[in-house]
Amino acid sequence: MAECITSRENSKIKYACKLAQSAAFRLEEQAFFAEGLKLCEELAKTCPLKVIYYTQKALDKAPQLAQLACDQYLVQDHVAEKLAGMPSHQGVFAVFGYPKVEFSQLPAGGRFLALDRVQDPGNVGALIRSAAAFGYDGVVLGPGCADPYSPKVLRASMGAVGQIPVVSCPNLPDALRQLHSMGCECLAAALYNSQPLDAVWIPPEKGLCLAIGSEGQGLSQAVIDVCQRAVRIPITPRVESLNASVAGSVLLWHFRGEMKGCNSL
Amino acid sequence: MAECITSRENSKIKYACKLAQSAAFRLEEQAFFAEGLKLCEELAKTCPLKVIYYTQKALDKAPQLAQLACDQYLVQDHVAEKLAGMPSHQGVFAVFGYPKVEFSQLPAGGRFLALDRVQDPGNVGALIRSAAAFGYDGVVLGPGCADPYSPKVLRASMGAVGQIPVVSCPNLPDALRQLHSMGCECLAAALYNSQPLDAVWIPPEKGLCLAIGSEGQGLSQAVIDVCQRAVRIPITPRVESLNASVAGSVLLWHFRGEMKGCNSL
Repeated sequence: MAECITSRENSKIKYACKLAQSAAFRLEEQAFFAEGLKLCEELAKTCPLKVIYYTQKALDKAPQLAQLACDQYLVQDHVAEKLAGMPSHQGVFAVFGYPKVEFSQLPAGGRFLALDRVQDPGNVGALIRSAAAFGYDGVVLGPGCADPYSPKVLRASMGAVGQIPVVSCPNLPDALRQLHSMGCECLAAALYNSQPLDAVWIPPEKGLCLAIGSEGQGLSQAVIDVCQRAVRIPITPRVESLNASVAGSVLLWHFRGEMKGCNSL
Repeated sequence: MAECITSRENSKIKYACKLAQSAAFRLEEQAFFAEGLKLCEELAKTCPLKVIYYTQKALDKAPQLAQLACDQYLVQDHVAEKLAGMPSHQGVFAVFGYPKVEFSQLPAGGRFLALDRVQDPGNVGALIRSAAAFGYDGVVLGPGCADPYSPKVLRASMGAVGQIPVVSCPNLPDALRQLHSMGCECLAAALYNSQPLDAVWIPPEKGLCLAIGSEGQGLSQAVIDVCQRAVRIPITPRVESLNASVAGSVLLWHFRGEMKGCNSL
C-alpha cells in the first residue's frame, strides 16, 4: 500500500514541482517530472522511473500503476492539483532520471536533427517526435532551445524524448563540425542561397545532419557557415513561411534513411 | 483623424468581441475579427476589411494603417486590452467580411485537403497554411472542425485562410463523393488497411482530395468508405503517431501538384 500524501507542503511534492518548473534544477538533479498516464507509461519504457504519484481515482482506473518498480505515493486531490499546476489533470505524475546519452555516443555516419534556438516547446517536442518516427539516430540541441525535459516539450514529444538520444551542446557549430568529421553531411534549412528540396538527395546509407532554426529567426549564420549545403522547401508565394515543426518534419521525412522495423511492410 | 473610443462598453467594441468569441455570430454576420499588425495586413490583401482599431502607440509604429480604406477607430489602452482579451497585445485589431467562397466554385480536377473532425485550432490553422503553401486549390471542412475564422485558427494559419478557398460542408462524405465526380481521386489518411506513402503516386495533372482526421480519432469510417484508397506515413515503432499537423503536412507535401509561381526556381 502506497504512503498517502495529504499536504501540498510535503517535501516530495515541492521537489516534484521544482523539477517541473526549473530547467537548472532538472540539470542539477539529472531528473525530470512528467504528467499523464500515457506519457508516464511511455517514458517508463526507456527512462529510469524514480517516483510515481497518483490519486485514488487514477489508481482505480489504472491498477497496473501499483506494479511499477519505484517509490509510490497516493496523493489527495488538492495535492494533485498542485503537482499539475491546474485543476484539470489525470491524477498520474512521475519523476524520472535523465536517460543516459552523450554526444560522444552518437553513431558515426548516422542521421541527425540539430536545432538552433528553437524556443517554442511545441515545436521542439513535435520535431523530436518526428525524428524518432522517421528513424533518425539522435537530436542535437544548441543553446537557446527549449529544454527537452520541460513539461510542455515532454507533452508535445509524446514521450519520444526517451526513444531517441537527445543531447544538448554548448556550441552548435562545433557539434556540427564534429558530426561532419564523423561522416555526416550537414544540411542547413535556409530560405536563401539554398537548393529546393526536390533537387537534393542523400543516399540512405550516407550520414547526415539536418540543421533547423526557429520560425522567426531561422538558422544563425555561424551554423549555416559550417554546413556543406543549404536546402529549402519550395512554397507558393501565397504564404511567407510554414509552421516550424511542419517545415522541419517535411525535411526530416525527405531525408529519412532506411527506416528499420517500420510499419511500411 | 480617426474617432477615439474610450469606453470598453462601446457598441463597436462589444460587436468585435462577440465576433472573436462566437462562431455562430460570425456566421450570422459573415464577418470575423483578427488581431495583430502582420496578420491584419496579410488578411487585408484578400478579405474585405470593414473596420480597423488601433492604439496611438501602434499607429505611431505603423502609420500606414491610417491609409487603409475602411472605418478607423483609435482605442485607448484599456479598450485594446478588452479587444485582445489579455494585457499583452500589438494594439492592432480588425473586422473583416468573409471571403466569398462556395463549394460549387472549387475547380474541377483540383487538389484539395479535407478535414474530418479536426478540433484543435492550431492543427486546422497549420494545415490550411501548408495547403496554401503547397499550391492546393481549396480546403474542405466537415462538421466538428475548428472554425477557420476563430482567432486561434487565424493566428495558426498566419492569414492563409484568405489565400486559399476554405469551405465548410455539412456532410463530408457527400462533399468527397462530389469531388470524386469532378475528377478527384479521394485519399484517406489511415493507419490500417492503407498503402505506405512511398508506394502511392498521383501524377501532378490529376485531381485529388486528401482526407485527414483528428489526432485522437482519425477519420470516421463513413469518410474512409467513400475514398478510393487509403495511405499512411510509415513510421518506426518508436512512436505511436505523429503530430496531426505534421502528418497532414507531410502528406500534403507528398501529394502536391505543380506548384505554380513557387520559389523553387
